[in-house]
This record gives sequence, structure tokens and C-alpha cells, in this order.
Amino acid sequence: MNKEQAIIDKFTNSYLGDDGAVVGKWVYSKDLFVEGSHFKRGWLELDEIAYKAMIVNISDAVVMNAVPKFALIGLGVPKSLKMEQISLLRDGFKRACDEFGVTIIGGDTISSDKIIISVTIISELNSQAVLRSGAKAGDLLAFTGKLGDSLKGLKALLRGGSVARNSRFKKPVLKDRFFYRSAKFLSAAMDISDGLGTDLAKLCKASGLGVKFSKKLSKNELKSGEEYEILFAFAAKNRKKIENLAKKSRTKITIFAKTTKGRYKNNAREHHF
Amino acid sequence: MNKEQAIIDKFTNSYLGDDGAVVGKWVYSKDLFVEGSHFKRGWLELDEIAYKAMIVNISDAVVMNAVPKFALIGLGVPKSLKMEQISLLRDGFKRACDEFGVTIIGGDTISSDKIIISVTIISELNSQAVLRSGAKAGDLLAFTGKLGDSLKGLKALLRGGSVARNSRFKKPVLKDRFFYRSAKFLSAAMDISDGLGTDLAKLCKASGLGVKFSKKLSKNELKSGEEYEILFAFAAKNRKKIENLAKKSRTKITIFAKTTKGRYKNNAREHHF
Repeated sequence: MNKEQAIIDKFTNSYLGDDGAVVGKWVYSKDLFVEGSHFKRGWLELDEIAYKAMIVNISDAVVMNAVPKFALIGLGVPKSLKMEQISLLRDGFKRACDEFGVTIIGGDTISSDKIIISVTIISELNSQAVLRSGAKAGDLLAFTGKLGDSLKGLKALLRGGSVARNSRFKKPVLKDRFFYRSAKFLSAAMDISDGLGTDLAKLCKASGLGVKFSKKLSKNELKSGEEYEILFAFAAKNRKKIENLAKKSRTKITIFAKTTKGRYKNNAREHHF
Repeated sequence: MNKEQAIIDKFTNSYLGDDGAVVGKWVYSKDLFVEGSHFKRGWLELDEIAYKAMIVNISDAVVMNAVPKFALIGLGVPKSLKMEQISLLRDGFKRACDEFGVTIIGGDTISSDKIIISVTIISELNSQAVLRSGAKAGDLLAFTGKLGDSLKGLKALLRGGSVARNSRFKKPVLKDRFFYRSAKFLSAAMDISDGLGTDLAKLCKASGLGVKFSKKLSKNELKSGEEYEILFAFAAKNRKKIENLAKKSRTKITIFAKTTKGRYKNNAREHHF
């Protein structure tokens, strides 16, 4: 988004440009969700919306090798919302908090004509932060899980259909267990929120590298956003270790490319994204 | 707001209930501003809106004796907004950041039909946090500055009039210099955002105390919100010290009451707020 860039450009500094901002041992991630722009009320139940808003920010923390600890929640609530609907929102936040051991330490509730959810997650680094910019030429590139399900869910909803309560579109499943275990072997990582194609371009740009694909991926795999699977890079010599850690944490991973010297743009053209 | 309570009640813990949340040496404050609910575009210029959104959160940090360091900004921007309007928003954020030495370390920009600004300020405690709950029976109660100007500005705008660019309603002036110097002598503090009457009730409730007024305050002084002056309490023996520090930092203070044992409600009745 051009306008986003226009605002961020004014504030260039070393903290910006990753999934979260690192200050000492703390990582901060923040996202804003607005009814109409990010979700439609018919698509997700209110507890699913609140849960997903939390998980999406927790995902940013996980992929930097930080453990989510605290949350601040800003909430815009239409006057028309009934108490049982408020309870649903609350339940969604609570479910995510309980699942990840997060304590809500503050926030703000206001009245607005649409539901607005603003989440700030404060996380503590396990050790070193894993950044987007750390990949080296020759590293292997992989992603967790199976990509494409979220886009399928979205398409079904856009057609007026419905998706199951455990669809990836409704309920991202973070791969934190695998990630924390393997973090020390990873050179770069980010979560897949805009689609593997777009996010891969970001990671490569941040690392100043190109890509050579070793596996053909479908358009669905490349374009499906809001997956909250993890895109990550690691030195080829650690391949066995990573595969073992994936097995131990029962996490599917797919090695699909390796990084090269040069710029991403040229290599990507043939993949049409 | 009943609904706010309904959401917060589910998450009762020791972090909640003050201007900001204290975690170790860090203080976190967060507020959400939505066009229509909090501001009208005709009332404030976009740079004034952005500036005020920052200052209001910085105010929360100051009154806890914390120095604002970092900010995360979530921004909802209508597609109709022109680049020069975006620049104005940016300028407002930047002006507040420059003034208080704050670095913007992250955030999120989305498109929405109304302007939404969500600010999280990360601040570092000078030493001990000053809480709402620390007042002791017999403490003196005072406020900084002159109250009432913000309400006057609001009323003028509601009548279709206008207010000067340096009106308190447009540009809160924080009393951080006085506060940081006197913080070690203060037993409790909070900023005046809802009006002295309402905020005094909150401070007394948090401290478990009542109030005996020593000075008659006008309805305007008691009811004017968004002042961002400071309500504070201190032991009577420190009166001279506080008055000297106020003089040194050229900050007007008004001692208007003292705290008493008992509950605020009973003492307040005669003041009709």
C-alpha cells in the first residue's frame, strides 16, 4: 500500500521492517483489524474474530523467537452490540491468552460504528531474535504446514459459502513448538500473512538475496495469505537437524528453494507473482 | 461505559486499573481514537489529531513517572485521503515524537472508511511508579494548570464556532518537567482526561479514601475533560517542597482538598458531580 509506505518512510530507523520491533529482550508487535476491511461479521463469529486478532500478533512474536507474555487491547464496539456478543469477543481474547500464556495488562474500549480491534503483544526473546534480514546466500528456504487452505476458505466465503470452524482461515495454527526448538539453526524467518510469493520477496529483499526454486509450487500455495505458517531460511549443513526437529514436533516442512546472490526480482519473474 | 467494564472484568489482574501498565521498568499505555467518536475532521486539522493522539498516551506515561521512549502506531486511513493529508498526519506524529524524544518502532497501516489511530507508548520508569492507589489519608490533593479551557473549546466547536490553534482542546500541554522533579514526593497521581470530578473519584476509589474540599471549584473546573493536567496527592509535610518545585518549573498548582478515611462517595455528594 502506497500510503502505508508514505507514513513509514518518515520514520525510518533500525527497529522497523520486521514482524515485530526488538528493544532489548522485548519484542513488540501490533496490528489493527476493522470490520469491513479485515473481516465480515457473517464470516467469522465474534469469538473467532477476537481469537484470530490475537493469534496473528502472537504469530509475529513466535517467528522472531520470542514468547508472548502481555497484551494491550484497544477495542471499538458499536452501541448495537449486545452483552452476549461482547462476551463472545471476550471469550475469543481469553481463549488465545490461555493458549499462549498471555496476560492482558491494559487497553482501551471505545464506542464506534464498526468493530475495531487493535492488539499489541509484548513478547520476551528466547535468546537471539530471528530476523527477516539474516539469510545468507546458499541457505535453504522452507515453509511449515500446507499452504492454500486459507485462500480456499476465503474464496468459499466470497462465493457466499461457508467454512468449517477449524478452517485455517478462521483458526490459524501456529508452529511455535517447532520454531522455538529450531530457532538457533535458522538464519531468517517471517510468518506467511500476505502469501508465500509476496512474503518471500520481502524476506529476500531484507536479506539482499535472490532465490532459486527447487520445487514447483502451485499458484494457490504462492498466493494464499493469512496462513500464519512460517517461511524460514537455514544453512544447508543444518538440513538434517531441521528435518529431525520438524519430525519431533510433528510439523510438516517443505524445502522449496535456496537463496542466491543477487536480487530476488530477476529470479521471481518466471513464477508470475 | 458498561461494555468496557464487561470486557475488562474478565481480565482482572494487578496490571490493570492505572494510566499505564507497569512491567518491570517499563510502562505501557494504549488508546484508540476514531473519527466521529473522538474527533471530527472539521474541528481539528489532521496534524493536530495525530499530535493529540500521541500526547494523550504520553500523558499516561508522564503521570506514572515514566519517560516515553517508543511508540507503535496503528492507523486506519480512508482511501479518499490525499497524500498531503497523509503528510499532515505524519507531521503530527513526528512533532509529538520530536518533542518527547519518542521513536516509532512499528505499527500497522490499513485502509478503513474512517480515520482510526491506535497508539501504544512504551516508557521507562524514572524510579518508582506513581500509581493512582498510593494516596494516604490526610494527603493533600492538587492539580496542575488551569482547568476548564478544554470544555470551553469543546462547547465553542459544538456551537459551530472555532477555537485557536493553541487552545488546550487542540493542544494539551503536559507538565512533565514539574512531575518528574516532584515525583518522589507524590503518593498518587493521574492525568485529568474525564474531568477532575470523575478522575478524583477514580483516584480516591483506587486509594480507598474519601475527600474533604478546602477550595470551592467551579462546575467548569470539575467537568472539563481532556485537560491532561495532572491530579496528584502528597503528604502534607511536603507541601513547601512541592510548592517550590512548582515555582521552579513555572507550573501553576492548586491545592484544593485533602484525603480522608472513608469513601469518596459520601463526601462528594454536596459537589453535584
